[in-house]
Amino acid sequence: MNFPAHSTGPGTARTLADPDTPFAVVDLRRTLRNIERLSAAADRLGVTLRPHVKTAKSLDVAALLHDGTPCPVTVSTLAEAEAFADGGYTDITYAVGIDPHKIPRVLALLRRGVTLRVLLDSVEQAEFVADASRRAGLAVPAQIEIDCDGHRGGLKPDAPSLPRIGRILHEAGCLDGVLTHAGESYFATTAEEQRQAARNERDTAVAAAERLRAAGLPVATVSVGSTPTAHAAEDLTGVTELRAGNYVFFDLVMAGLGVCRVEDLALSVVVTVIGHRPEHGWIITDGGWMAMSRDRGTAVQAQDQGYGLVTDLDGTLVPGLVMTAASQEHGTLTARDGARLPDLPVGTRLRVLPNHACATAAQHRGYHVIDGTRSTGSAPEIRNFWERVTGW
Amino acid sequence: MNFPAHSTGPGTARTLADPDTPFAVVDLRRTLRNIERLSAAADRLGVTLRPHVKTAKSLDVAALLHDGTPCPVTVSTLAEAEAFADGGYTDITYAVGIDPHKIPRVLALLRRGVTLRVLLDSVEQAEFVADASRRAGLAVPAQIEIDCDGHRGGLKPDAPSLPRIGRILHEAGCLDGVLTHAGESYFATTAEEQRQAARNERDTAVAAAERLRAAGLPVATVSVGSTPTAHAAEDLTGVTELRAGNYVFFDLVMAGLGVCRVEDLALSVVVTVIGHRPEHGWIITDGGWMAMSRDRGTAVQAQDQGYGLVTDLDGTLVPGLVMTAASQEHGTLTARDGARLPDLPVGTRLRVLPNHACATAAQHRGYHVIDGTRSTGSAPEIRNFWERVTGW
Repeated sequence: MNFPAHSTGPGTARTLADPDTPFAVVDLRRTLRNIERLSAAADRLGVTLRPHVKTAKSLDVAALLHDGTPCPVTVSTLAEAEAFADGGYTDITYAVGIDPHKIPRVLALLRRGVTLRVLLDSVEQAEFVADASRRAGLAVPAQIEIDCDGHRGGLKPDAPSLPRIGRILHEAGCLDGVLTHAGESYFATTAEEQRQAARNERDTAVAAAERLRAAGLPVATVSVGSTPTAHAAEDLTGVTELRAGNYVFFDLVMAGLGVCRVEDLALSVVVTVIGHRPEHGWIITDGGWMAMSRDRGTAVQAQDQGYGLVTDLDGTLVPGLVMTAASQEHGTLTARDGARLPDLPVGTRLRVLPNHACATAAQHRGYHVIDGTRSTGSAPEIRNFWERVTGW
Repeated sequence: MNFPAHSTGPGTARTLADPDTPFAVVDLRRTLRNIERLSAAADRLGVTLRPHVKTAKSLDVAALLHDGTPCPVTVSTLAEAEAFADGGYTDITYAVGIDPHKIPRVLALLRRGVTLRVLLDSVEQAEFVADASRRAGLAVPAQIEIDCDGHRGGLKPDAPSLPRIGRILHEAGCLDGVLTHAGESYFATTAEEQRQAARNERDTAVAAAERLRAAGLPVATVSVGSTPTAHAAEDLTGVTELRAGNYVFFDLVMAGLGVCRVEDLALSVVVTVIGHRPEHGWIITDGGWMAMSRDRGTAVQAQDQGYGLVTDLDGTLVPGLVMTAASQEHGTLTARDGARLPDLPVGTRLRVLPNHACATAAQHRGYHVIDGTRSTGSAPEIRNFWERVTGW
């Protein structure tokens, strides 16, 4: 198995039994399988895939996306944009609404030859982007955020200001296209609801693009995506590109939606048993919310998975064992569904599968990487350590 | 105002209007007031204060605790212990149950002359700590964790194994004392319940110490503490030291309990308005859960504060404005209690006060420091940047 560039050595840690806990682990085989799955779907749908790198925030993970060749990416911070530009990525969408203070860093990236697209949904933003472009003599490519499901930001396709925003951008050479994100699809609990969310996401983006075109404005990019809708989409006619981020690792929220199986989860946290409270039915570990994050996304799903499901070091689920409570550096494991609390002495290492990969990954400096084959020795061998981009 | 050592320069950022958002801010005046308050209480109670540095994780903040002189501290990770040892701290309690794998790092700190105390609550832990001490020819000082309120780990003072654990440790020269933490005091909603929790915490720790002493075992340290009980305690007879961590910054959970006022909160996150959804009553900012954490500790309190209350850059509350939703890099502000949604254009900077200072601080590389006086210019001047200890 080949490892991409940018790798840093795993130091003296040879297996998952070696580094002090807690630490994050990435299963390479599962990551590659998840990447190949959405890649194939995008090919089938005839759209460009523009992965959102906000989940892994790692040049090493990103190198898996396209055989080591920089591909179009989406970022959630300018720090990611700058790190990916340093790594040779030249086609980047910054998918958070732009404010005037961030324009100098946007211009600096454009001057380096990076096509950095910004996002906006108001006349005031269009005006300062247009002004900044004129003053810099360098058009900032901008996408208009479209709201398809009332989740967050964006304009409805019939918003009165849409053509005006398009016009302001176009006249400054900035208009690139439209972008929408079906954030509410995270709460679409059936496959049909997810397909419907994907149709709605496409229809809304295309309607906005058509409205701009009808006003005589050129729309190059029609961008849609969220992990659930990207996997549910059956027809993306009129769409040019698909975005998704979480899918590289997946997590228990996605498994709860049926977007993936628990066996597809590629990120976990290795923890150590540090105590027992048999009278409460608790096993205490050294993995608390500092290691897992406070994210409890499955709390609103049919099956609440607490802070996470528990596996052995090889990744095999320990039946019925759930991380049900967390303080800063303590996790509490309990048995459910009539399962017997297993006998796990102090020092036993386990892995915890997270609710939300983006949030759990963010608690760590990087990932110890295993290849995902069954271990032949006492614990899976660590093949590499991959650092994350941090900050803003 | 003097700034402690370890400071690194704030770079080119001169005021809170300068760094790109989001970023964390520490109000020095409030921090010092919070530190002085508990210091005075510990003096009055006649106990040593051993602050828990897990909240700020900063040598610079710690330097405020005792006029720049290293004082006894509590840590939540060995990474903190090592960083504080590097900073000249020689009396450190690692208040998370020990596992065998971490013993080499404990021994390395002891060999450097640091009195690093470990925590345990089982015969198996006592045995490996005693064994490791004998093999190293160096006694690892150990405290026995006592459970005072069923919150997490620890032994009840009448647990059958308590004297045996004490004996194993004592015979290896390791027995230092007992430690308890009233974690349930975070749910004690009245001042009288908090005083009761403090009495119970004291009584439980002292009972465990007395039981060990009755068995002929020397108990030097009787350690209690949590931010609510540390501020509620009226009499700590029999206790030798008091621990608390959150109090240096405080947060909305502590304000909700009445342990502090909202005006005492010393940590906040500066965010920028990036959009509006007037039809939903939303203002969108660039501060999501990556900047605030997913912690929603006030959700179980009488007044749910969402992801946080909002102030202007000077720290004055914007009446009725609450951060009610978060995605990775987006925050949603809404008005409550009949308040009018203020008119805040894109680019406006605000500060958000967190639910849980420990969790929010952990999302940031460090703190921009302001002195906490009213700004005379457009925004408070940044006096310094203080880095955090990260990882495990």
